[in-house]
Amino acid sequence: MDKIIRINMSAGETPGITEEGLGSYAGLGGRAMTSSIVAKEVPPLCHALGSDNKMVIAPGLLSGSAAVMSGRLSIGCKSPLTGGIKESNAGGQPSQMLGRLGYAAIIIEGKPKDNTLYKIVVTSEGVTISPDSTLKMLGNYDLVEKITQEFGDKVACISIGPAGEMKLAAASIACTDPELRPTRHAGRGGTGAVMGSKGIKAIVIDDTGAGFRNPKDPENFKEANKIFTRGIKEHPVTGEGLPAFGTNVLTDVLNEAGAYPTLNFKSGRFDGAAKIGGQALATLETQRNGKATHGCQKGCIIKCSGIFNDKDGNYVTKQPEYETVWANGGNCGIDDLDTIAILDRMYDDFGLDTMDMGVALSIAMDAGLTEFGDGEAAINLIKEVGKGTSLGRILGSGAAVTGKVLGMERVPVVKGQAMAAYDPRGVQGIGVTYATSPMGADHTAGYTVATNILGVGGSLDPLSPDGQVELSRNLQIATASLDSLGLCLFVAMAILDNADAFQAMVNLVAGLTGKKFTPDDFSALGASVLKKERAFNFAAGFTSKHDRLPEYFKKEKFLPHDVVFMVKDEDLDQVFDKI
Amino acid sequence: MDKIIRINMSAGETPGITEEGLGSYAGLGGRAMTSSIVAKEVPPLCHALGSDNKMVIAPGLLSGSAAVMSGRLSIGCKSPLTGGIKESNAGGQPSQMLGRLGYAAIIIEGKPKDNTLYKIVVTSEGVTISPDSTLKMLGNYDLVEKITQEFGDKVACISIGPAGEMKLAAASIACTDPELRPTRHAGRGGTGAVMGSKGIKAIVIDDTGAGFRNPKDPENFKEANKIFTRGIKEHPVTGEGLPAFGTNVLTDVLNEAGAYPTLNFKSGRFDGAAKIGGQALATLETQRNGKATHGCQKGCIIKCSGIFNDKDGNYVTKQPEYETVWANGGNCGIDDLDTIAILDRMYDDFGLDTMDMGVALSIAMDAGLTEFGDGEAAINLIKEVGKGTSLGRILGSGAAVTGKVLGMERVPVVKGQAMAAYDPRGVQGIGVTYATSPMGADHTAGYTVATNILGVGGSLDPLSPDGQVELSRNLQIATASLDSLGLCLFVAMAILDNADAFQAMVNLVAGLTGKKFTPDDFSALGASVLKKERAFNFAAGFTSKHDRLPEYFKKEKFLPHDVVFMVKDEDLDQVFDKI
Repeated sequence: MDKIIRINMSAGETPGITEEGLGSYAGLGGRAMTSSIVAKEVPPLCHALGSDNKMVIAPGLLSGSAAVMSGRLSIGCKSPLTGGIKESNAGGQPSQMLGRLGYAAIIIEGKPKDNTLYKIVVTSEGVTISPDSTLKMLGNYDLVEKITQEFGDKVACISIGPAGEMKLAAASIACTDPELRPTRHAGRGGTGAVMGSKGIKAIVIDDTGAGFRNPKDPENFKEANKIFTRGIKEHPVTGEGLPAFGTNVLTDVLNEAGAYPTLNFKSGRFDGAAKIGGQALATLETQRNGKATHGCQKGCIIKCSGIFNDKDGNYVTKQPEYETVWANGGNCGIDDLDTIAILDRMYDDFGLDTMDMGVALSIAMDAGLTEFGDGEAAINLIKEVGKGTSLGRILGSGAAVTGKVLGMERVPVVKGQAMAAYDPRGVQGIGVTYATSPMGADHTAGYTVATNILGVGGSLDPLSPDGQVELSRNLQIATASLDSLGLCLFVAMAILDNADAFQAMVNLVAGLTGKKFTPDDFSALGASVLKKERAFNFAAGFTSKHDRLPEYFKKEKFLPHDVVFMVKDEDLDQVFDKI
Repeated sequence: MDKIIRINMSAGETPGITEEGLGSYAGLGGRAMTSSIVAKEVPPLCHALGSDNKMVIAPGLLSGSAAVMSGRLSIGCKSPLTGGIKESNAGGQPSQMLGRLGYAAIIIEGKPKDNTLYKIVVTSEGVTISPDSTLKMLGNYDLVEKITQEFGDKVACISIGPAGEMKLAAASIACTDPELRPTRHAGRGGTGAVMGSKGIKAIVIDDTGAGFRNPKDPENFKEANKIFTRGIKEHPVTGEGLPAFGTNVLTDVLNEAGAYPTLNFKSGRFDGAAKIGGQALATLETQRNGKATHGCQKGCIIKCSGIFNDKDGNYVTKQPEYETVWANGGNCGIDDLDTIAILDRMYDDFGLDTMDMGVALSIAMDAGLTEFGDGEAAINLIKEVGKGTSLGRILGSGAAVTGKVLGMERVPVVKGQAMAAYDPRGVQGIGVTYATSPMGADHTAGYTVATNILGVGGSLDPLSPDGQVELSRNLQIATASLDSLGLCLFVAMAILDNADAFQAMVNLVAGLTGKKFTPDDFSALGASVLKKERAFNFAAGFTSKHDRLPEYFKKEKFLPHDVVFMVKDEDLDQVFDKI
C-alpha cells in the first residue's frame, strides 16, 4: 500500500488520473488516511457538493493482509449531512482488494462540468475511468448485476444508488460482500451524495493476480494473528452472541435495559421487541433456508451477518443489523421482520443510511404522515425516495431536514445526524459520544454500550452521569485507531477484556509494517485523528455549542427509568480537553 | 408605553396572562426591546419551535406618538430559519395602535399542549385570549375578513396564514394596513412558524379611546417633527423617487448598475427589467385604477406603497416591493408584473417571506423542477405551499432547505437566510452586511446600497472592497437604532444627507420621553442591540465562520463587471470588533 491515486473530475474534457507516493500521508490508513487528507486538502467552508470537496477512499492499515477482521474500508469527505468532517466505514470486499493492489487511497476531487456518469476500474494494471450513461439511476442491485456481466464475478464494487445520484444527504455508498451483493454500506453522513456530486456511479475492483500483502516480520505477524484470533473466538460476545444472533442480539439486551428508543425516542421499552429480536430473526432465517451466521467479508471470524429470505425462501436482503431493525422497527412501532427486511433491501438498493432513514420515518409518523406501526405505509414512504418524489427527497435528506420541513420539535439528531439505537438517557455514556463525536450522533464513534450495558471493558452504571466522559473519550480514541487499522469495531470486545488480544492486535501492525508499533502508538494514532477532525470542524464553524444533545433529552424523563440525560455541558467540554 | 404583557401558553388548562412594568427593559422599544428580551430570556440552544422560545412583539420607541414614519413593529424570537436571534419588522397599523394603548411589549411564551388555535384581543380594557378553531388554516385575507366581521373595521390585526400554522421556516407574520389588508409582513426568519408553534393565529388590536401618546416636551417634539418631516419631503429619494415609483424604482437602478441578481445569481443584468421596473409598475397601477402612491400606515409621509389591480380593475395585492419583484421576477427570469402580483398576493395570504420564497423558486428552477421564466409554473409551485404538499413544504422551508433537499450547490444564503435583491459582487458593501448581520443575509440590516449605488450618505465604489466594512458597520448600527425607534428605514435617506433632519429625529425621542437623547445615545442604542444579538448568536453556536458568503461568490465572476466578492475574511471579522 504505497500508492495514492488522484482522479480529478474537473481536469478537462475527460477526468485526469495521477498516481503519487504517500508523501506526508505515509504510515496512515483507513480513517487516519481519509481524515488527514480531508483536513489538509479540503477548505472547511466549502460546499459539500462542490468542486472543492474531496472524496477519499482508504483501506485500513491492515487491510489486504492476512490479519483477521481487517477489511473495513474508510470513506471520507466533508459531509453534506453534518457540514463537518466525515469518515464512514464499511465492510465487504473492497478494502482487502484495494489493499492487496497496493492502493493506500483513492482521492476523487473536482466536479464534472455536466451530468455525465462515470465508472472507475481498478486492477493490477492500473486505474481507468470512463463515462457510462447506461448506469443512470440504477439501484445498487441492478448496478452490480450489470457490472458482473461486464467484469465477471471476481470483482468487488463500490457504488451509489439513485439516492447518491440525487445528492440526498442520507445517501450511502455500497460495498459488495463475498456474494457480490451491495449490502455493506458506508452509511452515515451522506458520503453517497458526495460521490454523486463527483459523477461517480461505481468503482469496480479486480485484484486478480494480487495476493495477501507480505508482512515484513512474518513470524511475529503470524503469531500475533493467532493470538488475536483466539481472543476474538474466546470472547462471549464475539465468539458466541454475535455469530449466533448477529448484531440484532442487542434488541433483547437494550430493551431489557430499558434503553431501547421507541416511537421516536418516547420511551425505552418496545412491546414488540421479542418479535423482532435476535432470536426471532435467527430462527426465521434458519426456517427459511437463509443463514443466521455469515461473514460480510472474507477473513471475518465473527460472522455476525446472515441471509434473510422471504417466506418462499427467496433472498431478500442480508441480515438486517440491530440498528436497522431498531430504527425501522421499534422506533417506528413496527414489529414485523419481513417489513424491516424489505425496508433494509430498499435502503441497500437506493443507497441510503438505514439509521437516518428510520429516524426520518419515525419523525414523519410522529408528524402524522402515517401511524406509528404501519409497516405498509413505511414501505410506501421509502418507495417515494427511490422515485425521487418531493416527499422522497425530504425523507432522503435525513432526519434533521425531515424534522425541519415537517415543523417538528422532537428531532433526535446531533450536528444534523440521527442518533442510533441507544437512548442517551438510558445509556448516558452514549449520549456523551453522540454529543461530542466529530461525526455527529454516531454510536460507533465511542461505543460506551460495551461498558454501560454489556459489561465489556469493566462496567459503569448506564443511568449515572459519573465517569461517562472518561469512558466515551477513551473509546472514541480507541475507535479512531481501530478505524484507521481497518479492523471491525467488534474486535474492541476482545481487546477491551483481554490484554493478550490487545497486544496481539498491536503486534499485527508492527509485524506487517516492520516498524515499531506499541500500545501507546495505537492510542496516539486515534488521538491524532480526533484532533485533526476537531480542528476541521472548528474551522468549518463548529463550537462546543454543537457538542450538545437536543434540549428535550435534558428535560423530558424517559421511562422505564424516569431519568433525563444528566451529563453536564461543562463535562461534555472535557471530552476533548484531554486529547 | 409602560406595560409588558406576558401570555404563557403552557400555563395550564388555559393560557395565563400577566401584566408587568418595564423593569430592566425600561427605555427600550422595537428591536432593542425584542432583542433584549430574547437575549435575556431565551436559552440560545433551545429549539426554535419549542416551549423555551419566546415571541416578542414590540412597537418602536416612537410608535403611537405623532412622530411621522414611526409605526414599525418589531417581532423577535429565536429564528427557526437561521437558528440565531431574529428581529423582523413590519409596517401597517398594529405598532401605532399598541403604542397608543401603552403596551411596550407582548411576550408569548411556553407552548400549548395540543393543537388548539387561539386569538388574542388587545383593547383599552386589557388583553384576552380565547380558542377559536374556526380560524384553522385560513389564509390571511379570509382571516382578516372574519376578524372584521366579529370586531368591526377599526381594528388592526397581526396574524399568520397556513404557512405559520404548518411551522414552515419561511413563514411570515402579517400586519394589516390602513385598509385592513394583511399586506405588511414581518417577513424574514420564520417568525410566523414561531407564532404557529405557540398556537396563536391572530392578535386583534382595537385602540378605540386611546389617542396619540403625549410628548413630555410638546414644544420641542412638535418642532422636531416639523424639521424631520421637511427633511424627508425634501430628499430626492424619499420626496420624489419612492412616492412616484415605490421601492420598485430600484429595479431600473440596480439593473443599470449591473448588480441585479438574475437567474439565481448568475448575472447582474436582466433583459426583462424594464418590463417589471418602477415606471412600468406605476403606469400599470394607474391605468388599472389602482394606486401608484399609497402609505402602508397612517403617519407615513413617503407613501412608497401602491395598489395593484388586475386588468379588470379588481384588487390583487398591494404594490409588490422591489425585493419581491426581483426575487420572483428577474431572479426567476420572469418579466410579467401580473404573475409577480399573483405570487405576492399568495405570499401575503399564505403568510410567507417573499424573498426567501422567490429565491427558493429560483433554486427549484435551477434544479430543473421547471424552466426559468415560466410564470405559470411558479404560481403552481407556490400553490403547493398553500396546500401543504411535500413540495410545498420544501419550498416553504425557504431557500436553504430547498437547496439542500434538491441537492443544489448554488444556494445564495447566509446563516440559512436568502440574500436579497443586490448581488454582493456588484454591491460589495451589501455583501459585508449579508455576511455579518446577526440576522443572516438581510439587506435592510445595513443598507450600503444607499451609499454604494444611490449616493446617499456620500458615495463609495460598489465594486471595490475598500471601505465597505466601515460603511456596513456604521449602517448596521444606525439601522439597529432606527429599528428600535420604530422608524421606517427610509428615513435613513434623509438623516444620512441632512444633519438637521438627523438632529430632529433624535430630538423627537427626547421630546417624547422628556429625557436626554443625543446623537451619541442614538448610536449607542444601536451598538448595544447588535452586541446583545451577537452574544446570543455566539451562545447559540455561531462563530466568525458563519459570517461568510457562500464560497462561489468569491470564485465565480459576475457579469457585467467580471468581479468576485473581494472583501477579505479577516476584514469581515472587523465589522464587530469596533462595536
